[in-house]
Amino acid sequence: MNFKLLIQYDGTDFHGWQVQKNRRTVQGELQKVISLLNGDKVYVCGSGRTDAGVHAEGQVANVKMKKSFTAEKLKQAINGNLDKDVRIMHVEIVPEDFHARFSAKSKTYLYRIVNADVISPFWKRYAYHETRKLDLQRIQQAAEFLVGEHDWTAFSSSATESKDKKRRIFEIEVVERFDTRAQALMIEFYITGNGFLRYMVRSMIGTLLEIGRGERKIESIREALLTGRKEFVGATAPAHGLTLLKVTY
Amino acid sequence: MNFKLLIQYDGTDFHGWQVQKNRRTVQGELQKVISLLNGDKVYVCGSGRTDAGVHAEGQVANVKMKKSFTAEKLKQAINGNLDKDVRIMHVEIVPEDFHARFSAKSKTYLYRIVNADVISPFWKRYAYHETRKLDLQRIQQAAEFLVGEHDWTAFSSSATESKDKKRRIFEIEVVERFDTRAQALMIEFYITGNGFLRYMVRSMIGTLLEIGRGERKIESIREALLTGRKEFVGATAPAHGLTLLKVTY
Repeated sequence: MNFKLLIQYDGTDFHGWQVQKNRRTVQGELQKVISLLNGDKVYVCGSGRTDAGVHAEGQVANVKMKKSFTAEKLKQAINGNLDKDVRIMHVEIVPEDFHARFSAKSKTYLYRIVNADVISPFWKRYAYHETRKLDLQRIQQAAEFLVGEHDWTAFSSSATESKDKKRRIFEIEVVERFDTRAQALMIEFYITGNGFLRYMVRSMIGTLLEIGRGERKIESIREALLTGRKEFVGATAPAHGLTLLKVTY
Repeated sequence: MNFKLLIQYDGTDFHGWQVQKNRRTVQGELQKVISLLNGDKVYVCGSGRTDAGVHAEGQVANVKMKKSFTAEKLKQAINGNLDKDVRIMHVEIVPEDFHARFSAKSKTYLYRIVNADVISPFWKRYAYHETRKLDLQRIQQAAEFLVGEHDWTAFSSSATESKDKKRRIFEIEVVERFDTRAQALMIEFYITGNGFLRYMVRSMIGTLLEIGRGERKIESIREALLTGRKEFVGATAPAHGLTLLKVTY
């Protein structure tokens, strides 16, 4: 049976999604628990990796099991054996050919920024703290240039495993609002695309931040996309501000 | 100089507000840091205590210092010496007779409940997890009986220090909404009053929960208020669902 899992995790205490020897990872924890329930080793296939410190409010994975379960029972059994910083929110039985990575149509990431002199204890693990003033209009203008199909060489890790660096960004929504819990201005970036290379979102955000602070020209975005050169890209924004929000199929 | 402090804290790792020997408390941490800055011992006067595990998004305190500071400098200096789970959000210089407790006109507490079979890792520290179905209409009807001036003997700790158990509840707002971060139904209780006895909010919530589950009659509220007897009151709801939201002056 093939099960589709909807997963949330607080990335703070994980070394990312992908299984690593002697390190606590989300995939590693899930495979340990589900293998035990299955009585045989399983492979938990995620929609994609997330780096150390990155959170997920809507990661999706699939796992093939020889043992049969109802969706509800499997959810309860997995959650009963996991630490509280990772939860299975929903389980669904899906056709054998459902593949969490290859079947995905789009993914949405959310990057949160608290733009104030003090960051609330309630957001410090989940939002990047930017104390300098940001020019939102400049950021919004620059973000427009990121939308579309581009070669993202300049925005990705040089150690990235994908040869094809072309990905399509469908939409970037920038929301500025007063957050009552933060008691401060919160800037949220919702970035939807058909795929993301390693560090791609955080490089995009890092570049937009430098543009918003007036340290970098808006044209830098176009130059980075055309030349693939890292000098046109800002410093990678910190992992803890990033959340994988949604995967659509 | 008398300074008014607006304070947020994640109560998870504190033994409450009030100073205690060899225990980490919010008042204790603040007094340690501000005494150092002042070069002399200070007393940090809070609007009221919060119990171990209770959070604050808007606690208010005042502190009298012999050393002079601008509001901005004092905020930076205190925050620079505090752990990240407690933050001074704002500092204001106030008249000598401002007293965080006696000058307070009202306080608002927020109690958060995630009503679903699974609780999100992002809410587990800040919301109570209720898996059973709740009858919101019954809860709302019962909450109406709590509004007004009453003797809260039944709803308070027997070890409570106040002799006068009369307090006025101005408003109880019950909000039910789908929370995207929880991916679940969230029930929020906003309770505003001119003062609260120890355990009073958590006893109110515990009683409303039992009524919402159908385990207790709505009339139980009136009986508790009239007789002062604990048999008419539900089990005290857990501390981590409770947040001191606002103090008005």
